Amino acid sequence: MSEDAPKEVGELGEFALIERLCARLRPSFQRSEVIVGIGDDAAVIDAGGGRCWVVTCDVQVQGRHFPAKGVSGFHVGHKALAVNISDIAAMGGRPRYAIASLGMRADTPVSFVEEVYDGLNSVANRWSVLLLGGNVTRTEESFFIDIFLMGEAERESVLLRSTAKAGDQILVTGSLGDAAAGLHLVAHPEIQVRDDTHTILTYAFLRPQPRVEEGLAIAQLRLASAMMDLSDGLTGDLGHLCRASGVGAVLWAHALPLSASALELASLTRDNPVEWALSGGEDYQLLLTAPVSAVPALQEGVRAAGGLPLTPIGEIVPASQGIRLKQGDELTPITSRAWDHFRPTGEGYA
Amino acid sequence: MSEDAPKEVGELGEFALIERLCARLRPSFQRSEVIVGIGDDAAVIDAGGGRCWVVTCDVQVQGRHFPAKGVSGFHVGHKALAVNISDIAAMGGRPRYAIASLGMRADTPVSFVEEVYDGLNSVANRWSVLLLGGNVTRTEESFFIDIFLMGEAERESVLLRSTAKAGDQILVTGSLGDAAAGLHLVAHPEIQVRDDTHTILTYAFLRPQPRVEEGLAIAQLRLASAMMDLSDGLTGDLGHLCRASGVGAVLWAHALPLSASALELASLTRDNPVEWALSGGEDYQLLLTAPVSAVPALQEGVRAAGGLPLTPIGEIVPASQGIRLKQGDELTPITSRAWDHFRPTGEGYA
Repeated sequence: MSEDAPKEVGELGEFALIERLCARLRPSFQRSEVIVGIGDDAAVIDAGGGRCWVVTCDVQVQGRHFPAKGVSGFHVGHKALAVNISDIAAMGGRPRYAIASLGMRADTPVSFVEEVYDGLNSVANRWSVLLLGGNVTRTEESFFIDIFLMGEAERESVLLRSTAKAGDQILVTGSLGDAAAGLHLVAHPEIQVRDDTHTILTYAFLRPQPRVEEGLAIAQLRLASAMMDLSDGLTGDLGHLCRASGVGAVLWAHALPLSASALELASLTRDNPVEWALSGGEDYQLLLTAPVSAVPALQEGVRAAGGLPLTPIGEIVPASQGIRLKQGDELTPITSRAWDHFRPTGEGYA
Repeated sequence: MSEDAPKEVGELGEFALIERLCARLRPSFQRSEVIVGIGDDAAVIDAGGGRCWVVTCDVQVQGRHFPAKGVSGFHVGHKALAVNISDIAAMGGRPRYAIASLGMRADTPVSFVEEVYDGLNSVANRWSVLLLGGNVTRTEESFFIDIFLMGEAERESVLLRSTAKAGDQILVTGSLGDAAAGLHLVAHPEIQVRDDTHTILTYAFLRPQPRVEEGLAIAQLRLASAMMDLSDGLTGDLGHLCRASGVGAVLWAHALPLSASALELASLTRDNPVEWALSGGEDYQLLLTAPVSAVPALQEGVRAAGGLPLTPIGEIVPASQGIRLKQGDELTPITSRAWDHFRPTGEGYA
């Protein structure tokens, strides 16, 4: 390490740290059954017979991933499992088994932890996930819940983020920016909106719905070239996809699917809903790429799976052109603003 | 919940809390391929073809599982993976794939996290585990590392903790109490012992060696009736095994295998090494039960696997007799003193 190399993880940032850590791993052996190791939404292991295991984990920390106040235990449990299911959905897999690891202070109310489990139970039943066990440990500080999830997929249908091609269209399920709008409402309970708008937006943030059926439909059609889920924000996640695939992208600002609810709130708060859609994060929609000719069949498949629209929002271009946003006739380079846990923008909700 | 039911997890205790949480899970479906769900060292899933998956997770929290000072990043990484491998070994399985989830403050030194990964890498290579990925999140407080581990086992050889039978002998691999003695040395660096004694004892605490080869040898012989690993302390873990199997036990104090190193330290500090062996915890040896007639073959199998002794330390009796310690001719009931993260005894190392 050179003299002026970053000495604390906060200087390095989340993604550079992960890269550095992966470089420390020097396996002394190979495993031919590992199809995808580190670097995608989930790891993929050949299970034989044309099937594979898709495994992932993600942690939710109080004060970082959810505000310490205003979020019930039920929502914490719901979200902890749902965001992991979303990673499996992003590969075109079906979630199967989960294990939960919880950390909490000794003065945590029993009722709060029971609510967390009620949230887990509800999501597990909705998406047919079996919770196989877990452990509970004491911390002196924030509550955390870490979920490990195993899913299954057809080996030939698994979709990666590293296989997008120049010329492909970029598509997204559902609408974008609702979770960011919902977080705004949770953080500002004084804002008055219609009841159903409030429910739609806060639930988009507190109870994300992983797009499992849509992901399966897309994978089974074998028409998409790449897929991932949207957790860090569209521009950040698109940046990950482009880097992994070695391509660039143009996003069409006018085409971003905004919900009537997000538009209603934005007109009230004078926020820019396009900003929510671009960098709000936590929408847990699927972001995919596919040749233009495949788009109608994919749209029909996604609609049949759950009624959601699948909206073209841009196109993949050669890497040399970078990632740009098209507004009218103007093309502006997009700086990736992915949620980075160690960067000043990622101050959390503490 | 009645009026005077415990309201905080600290009042309830770790094991009662886990029981309460498991009761909140009400799966709306069955999975016939799940052989063992919640409650053993690891969950077991039928993988077809006579094989099964054995999956587990365990977290290490700074200040709880290891002292905030005096433990290098390498040791934290080593132990985090080793204790999970021990859970797979306890089922007679072979560890395969791991995912790591880390939480840390922004001012954590990059070099510390790199050392953690060096520790992970070393253990992964020693026991042929492939690290498939992970994630890093920011906390405002203690460092934690949560590991999920998938292993494989032969379906017919998997050993559970719930199948011990009255009349069986109780056996343990290696020696007991070395980890407790090592913790004592780490906590009291002023104590002077011989270099090799220091290394043996502190390494027993800082670099536990999961008994994978021994576990496989025992499982393949199909002579043992039950098995688990020793993490919470012999009396506590034996209590778990007895409750799960619906049996009681008599432990023979004189037969507990104590190492020369532990005896050397105990004579210096005037500690009781039998106490370290009974309730020190973190030895990560295998605790098993087997009919008396099977003991010689099991001892030979364990010796051939890695040179360790397999020592008879007691016998399984009917549940009505409880769990007792035999010292000379005297039988004393043992109160289970398992490490409980939320009990006053479990104050951690903060």
